[in-house]
Amino acid sequence: MTGGTTVEEKYIKTLQEQQGSFLTFRQDEVALSNGARATRDMVLHPGAVAIIAVTEEEEVIFVKQYRYPVQTVLYEIPAGKLEKGEDPLICATRELEEETGFVAKSWEKITTFYTAPGFANETMHLYYARDLVKKEAHPDPDEIITFAKIKLSEALQMIEKGEIQDAKTLIALLWLAKAK
Amino acid sequence: MTGGTTVEEKYIKTLQEQQGSFLTFRQDEVALSNGARATRDMVLHPGAVAIIAVTEEEEVIFVKQYRYPVQTVLYEIPAGKLEKGEDPLICATRELEEETGFVAKSWEKITTFYTAPGFANETMHLYYARDLVKKEAHPDPDEIITFAKIKLSEALQMIEKGEIQDAKTLIALLWLAKAK
Repeated sequence: MTGGTTVEEKYIKTLQEQQGSFLTFRQDEVALSNGARATRDMVLHPGAVAIIAVTEEEEVIFVKQYRYPVQTVLYEIPAGKLEKGEDPLICATRELEEETGFVAKSWEKITTFYTAPGFANETMHLYYARDLVKKEAHPDPDEIITFAKIKLSEALQMIEKGEIQDAKTLIALLWLAKAK
Repeated sequence: MTGGTTVEEKYIKTLQEQQGSFLTFRQDEVALSNGARATRDMVLHPGAVAIIAVTEEEEVIFVKQYRYPVQTVLYEIPAGKLEKGEDPLICATRELEEETGFVAKSWEKITTFYTAPGFANETMHLYYARDLVKKEAHPDPDEIITFAKIKLSEALQMIEKGEIQDAKTLIALLWLAKAK
């Protein structure tokens, strides 16, 4: 360990702010600990959950959906945004069933992380779900989602080939590979 | 594999757009493949690199810095934004030396991923750097960064304890643990 102390940046003022349908864009002027000033662009996000759901045959449940910001279809683990004040585990249970129709009897919290802390405050709660029962999927009206079951071993090969391009999905799969 | 085809969302019009210092916030109206319309909030980002640099003693080079959007100090692997038209490997070489003073003789591309494809187009190029030589660090004037060398085994324990909260750092460490 080297170097001095790392200290916080103090809010001075908001230079601009714009409200989207679920994101808030904000640009703040801040004071650094050395007295210098800097501008910080960021988006405020309601927070999210993601679920790595695994069958008894060690198949991982994926959703495949078009992601407009990156203009491509991605394989991802099921995920969704927190509603205001919602408990993350309740949200995870809801999102897994909505997007894939699977209901899990066993839930384990893996970790909580920031997807892009350099420019967003999104906090992602990651869960491991097992003992799955299949019911009917009912995604949000503005989500067109298909699901796929892929063997963990095959999913890990997809990582090697660069076919898994979503950060939370990489974390979940690599975590599961390490835990096995 | 179940379900129908997943197809793209078509741009209709931009409802609002705001330019920050490096992010652009945009809200578009889009047409889904089923004919329905939806609103998409997103931020446009220049893209970034991250580097997991490992010493001969199997220590991982971390940077510790205050992240204003999440109001906390995080342990992260070195990373930085791409300059316009910059080659990711050249950017990675530059960022590693600027933030930590380390110069690596051996570089390997791990993968490319999207940090938050639901609301941002940030593309992150992840590298594995070895054969390190220490020179002088010279971070950007608006970055107050200290660096730390942490044994891989200890870093993995930090994950277990929830002390690594940054997505790219989790991906890099779990990838390295699996590769070992």
